[in-house]
Amino acid sequence: MITRMSQLFFRTLREDPADAEVPSHRWLVRAGYIRRAAPGIYSWLPLGLRVLANVEQVVREEMDAIGAQEVRFPALLPREPYEATNRWTEYGPNLFRLKDRKGGDYLLGPTHEEMFTLVVKDLYSSYKDLPLALYQIQTKYRDEARPRAGLLRGREFVMKDSYSFDVDDAGLDASYEAHRQAYIRIFDRLGFEYVIVKATSGAMGGSASEEFLAIAPNGEDTFVRSPGGYAANVEAVQVAPPPEQDASGIGPVRNVDTPRTGTIAELVDAANAKFPRPDRAWTAADTLKNVVFKLTNPDGTTDLLVVGLPGDRDVDLKRLDAAVAPAEATPVTDDDFAANPGLVKGYIGPVRVTDAGPVQYLGVDGEAKIRYLLDPRVVSGTSWITGANVVDTHQVDVVAGRDFAGDGVLDVAEIREGDPAPDGSGPLTLARGIEMGHIFQLGRKYAEALGLKVLDENGKLVTVTMGSYGIGVSRAVAAVAEGTCDERGLAWPRELAPFDIQVLATGKGVEIEEAAVQLAEDLDAAGLKVLLDDRKASPGVKFTDAEVMGMPTSVVVGRGLADGLVEVRDRASGEREEVPLADAVAHLLAVVHNR
Amino acid sequence: MITRMSQLFFRTLREDPADAEVPSHRWLVRAGYIRRAAPGIYSWLPLGLRVLANVEQVVREEMDAIGAQEVRFPALLPREPYEATNRWTEYGPNLFRLKDRKGGDYLLGPTHEEMFTLVVKDLYSSYKDLPLALYQIQTKYRDEARPRAGLLRGREFVMKDSYSFDVDDAGLDASYEAHRQAYIRIFDRLGFEYVIVKATSGAMGGSASEEFLAIAPNGEDTFVRSPGGYAANVEAVQVAPPPEQDASGIGPVRNVDTPRTGTIAELVDAANAKFPRPDRAWTAADTLKNVVFKLTNPDGTTDLLVVGLPGDRDVDLKRLDAAVAPAEATPVTDDDFAANPGLVKGYIGPVRVTDAGPVQYLGVDGEAKIRYLLDPRVVSGTSWITGANVVDTHQVDVVAGRDFAGDGVLDVAEIREGDPAPDGSGPLTLARGIEMGHIFQLGRKYAEALGLKVLDENGKLVTVTMGSYGIGVSRAVAAVAEGTCDERGLAWPRELAPFDIQVLATGKGVEIEEAAVQLAEDLDAAGLKVLLDDRKASPGVKFTDAEVMGMPTSVVVGRGLADGLVEVRDRASGEREEVPLADAVAHLLAVVHNR
Repeated sequence: MITRMSQLFFRTLREDPADAEVPSHRWLVRAGYIRRAAPGIYSWLPLGLRVLANVEQVVREEMDAIGAQEVRFPALLPREPYEATNRWTEYGPNLFRLKDRKGGDYLLGPTHEEMFTLVVKDLYSSYKDLPLALYQIQTKYRDEARPRAGLLRGREFVMKDSYSFDVDDAGLDASYEAHRQAYIRIFDRLGFEYVIVKATSGAMGGSASEEFLAIAPNGEDTFVRSPGGYAANVEAVQVAPPPEQDASGIGPVRNVDTPRTGTIAELVDAANAKFPRPDRAWTAADTLKNVVFKLTNPDGTTDLLVVGLPGDRDVDLKRLDAAVAPAEATPVTDDDFAANPGLVKGYIGPVRVTDAGPVQYLGVDGEAKIRYLLDPRVVSGTSWITGANVVDTHQVDVVAGRDFAGDGVLDVAEIREGDPAPDGSGPLTLARGIEMGHIFQLGRKYAEALGLKVLDENGKLVTVTMGSYGIGVSRAVAAVAEGTCDERGLAWPRELAPFDIQVLATGKGVEIEEAAVQLAEDLDAAGLKVLLDDRKASPGVKFTDAEVMGMPTSVVVGRGLADGLVEVRDRASGEREEVPLADAVAHLLAVVHNR
Repeated sequence: MITRMSQLFFRTLREDPADAEVPSHRWLVRAGYIRRAAPGIYSWLPLGLRVLANVEQVVREEMDAIGAQEVRFPALLPREPYEATNRWTEYGPNLFRLKDRKGGDYLLGPTHEEMFTLVVKDLYSSYKDLPLALYQIQTKYRDEARPRAGLLRGREFVMKDSYSFDVDDAGLDASYEAHRQAYIRIFDRLGFEYVIVKATSGAMGGSASEEFLAIAPNGEDTFVRSPGGYAANVEAVQVAPPPEQDASGIGPVRNVDTPRTGTIAELVDAANAKFPRPDRAWTAADTLKNVVFKLTNPDGTTDLLVVGLPGDRDVDLKRLDAAVAPAEATPVTDDDFAANPGLVKGYIGPVRVTDAGPVQYLGVDGEAKIRYLLDPRVVSGTSWITGANVVDTHQVDVVAGRDFAGDGVLDVAEIREGDPAPDGSGPLTLARGIEMGHIFQLGRKYAEALGLKVLDENGKLVTVTMGSYGIGVSRAVAAVAEGTCDERGLAWPRELAPFDIQVLATGKGVEIEEAAVQLAEDLDAAGLKVLLDDRKASPGVKFTDAEVMGMPTSVVVGRGLADGLVEVRDRASGEREEVPLADAVAHLLAVVHNR
């Protein structure tokens, strides 16, 4: 059945929507694919829904191909299973919670580990039933603090989530690998550039995990790559600690007078002026910066945390968030300093010099009783200039392992272009991407919490080990648009386009109109999905709209018809070709099927 | 791709689920199609999801065929549009409401009139854009007071809802008729018995409306039919009032002493004993019963309402609910009587006899100032025995129109088998059904509330008129199961069955196993959807499960194989036929395609 644009429910808009931050959002709205219903919540118009259905179909086919079975869970879920795994609390304000008329607690599912675990527990009981992989393509909810970029970070969105169930670790490895290969096929078919990177597992728990990122300058995620093949989300980079150093030649800690040096730059200048190094100038890398954060736990309680790191680096807040999840970290305010007089703003350090010598100041066992975590570069034997916990005063020759220790390591300093890859595979480059897929080895966390056990070959009850695998289906629509659109509009890859061919009748005369309808019908009869621009509109409007709407191929039936010719246009390359009308169907079939 | 039962995620259960009230619910759970997640909230297992997808496909094809265009709106919706139409309040406790992290009010959409109206307003502005029909197949939410019967009355459910937009009434009539015809095709294809009945429009507003009911003894809806073709939901029956009567020969109202006659039966006995009629005995139909209800408005305020109706009929609470919606009616309690001493329980009547003659007692302008609505049978000139508003006292010769009047008519008395059809088409019979579809002429209510206007041919702004059309998609799965299952399990019609053919390998020997796999592969290659029972299980288990699971046709590869025969079983009829293995594929293709 031909779709006629005179009937199609859409409007192309000449103006950008006010809230459009990225090109994909701008064009999806302007081309009549989606409409905003509320912040981070979108309606799908006919064109957009066709793209969404195409993405779903690609995902479904590849999931079926690895033997995963499709099911569908509710979005409205009871509290109890999420209470059992503590995610009711851990999700914090990201979870939409509600009460039913009887006062029962419910949530809108952000992800369904609990429900899948329970249904497998319900139905299966033996190792013979495993391995098992289940998936759903379903609407999910997260109350994002900052919904943005249209479909890229929504509050209601469509995901494919799947879960694997295995009796042992080798089984989980195989299930994980099967999903990884399926994801490669899916993202290859979706037709955009992507990279597979090591990832953290965030609030999901679990161990091995990788992300599939669409490479996009507007992406929210930053990832690193090395020439030797290392690739990771910045949150997942584990900095390799330098070797420990011999500090035997370094003198005792001493306080130095450093008036008005509340910043690292001021401190370095003062150090070079007042107590210069003989061998070279002091740099920010010689200073130990101690940054205070307030951690808000999911239950609302707060703790202070001091992070100690070389002064030439800042804390990367996204790395910090990932490291402290489910707690949320915020920089401390002047009010917090006022409430904690032991923290001298601009002059915080791990050590206090007393008449009896240096004593540990930071750390849960230090005088200040504040948790203190150290960057992995602060290894034993390294010597630092750092705050003396006294206004206008710093310390020099403060040696890690000799004068102070942290309560642990926290690897949250910013990663910089050129930093060495942790595996020695060369200098890192940074780029941005959009998280399109995430695969996790969850392990036994959920099965343990919810009691999913099966009998093994020896008749012994063992806890099942699970994997969890997600794809942002509605996000993929935006990510593909983002990766393929240009300054004139959308430009869909063939597998996702709402229609194979857009037929434009341009110019006056019933002959043109009739020839366009006939060509559209012939293409439809040949099995192609055809959009016919039969509107009473100028050729200019039709050409512009065709570029905005982004079908991969369009055919113009217009002036050339007098010579028996139509024009075939390729949206992505802009190439145009005159083709005899008589050959048009065969030509377009070859184009669409890439023959 | 063949689906192997050894791999399929399902379990047949030998026991009925504890909460199963109706056969469809029992069998859908026992056959491994669905699982309960919370009251009125279900998960779809692979078998159930296939049936759901089949129903969706039938609906989609027929909606597309009438030119309706598929879109998809969010389920999580902002409060404002529903506030503009007052449904935020009117839905009362049936609406799931929630707040987001910023305190904004949201709801889970029970139906989407507002959102569709707004998107059309957003994009369209001229009569040339109309008519327009849009639809979605989408998950909806209603916080039912009494979720029941599995998928039949759920709190999260899948609906097809569509909306038509026309510039005038004739256009709406045409859109309504197109939907009506599409619904007939859909319900014919779904393969169960149904009836089209007049309906009320409930909380939706609007005028003309019809329901498509699946005929089912376990249905929640009662409908009536007459030999002459009248058909209506009982809520929609409008009783034809009898002719007015001449009361000129009837004497004045008088009080009579009727001790201990708080019920109609006691009153009739007392009347026949103490003041017998000369022509015939008094019956309950001679008495005017006045029943008090408390109406709770959506905003929580309450009002009293007295309903006056012939004493031989009771108020039908479902008809009352439909008539007073969005208010909810509940019978008054002894506490309510205590709080309203003007209402003398058992002796309520519209008139009080005073020394100066009878005065109107009930009614907003009566002495008691309580709203009083009358059954349509209480026409002017009819004479009644009724309460005197004094304990142990009634009145006789109380004439409607002479001695009292109501504040209006309320047609909520029970409809009985044998009552005359309102259109004179003969006596009514009653039956029960499940509401599967509902079509409404909404009119301009939503367009007016939300400002949806277009320019007409004369360049004048006119308000668009709308229709609203629903089908319970997940409910249809249960309704079809309910209408087709038997004491052995499910029995799907072909169009909805998860698989066309179930192949059972029964009996020992690698030959049987290999022949079954080969047959399954041949059927698959011939384009049929094949389920292969390849489990290590006894023939008895396989036969029983096949009957529980309900594929329309199964093929048994077993003992007959030695003679080159397989057995073809028809699930619905129970018929069995031996067929040469060599002919099996051709035979089964003919069976499945009904050739």
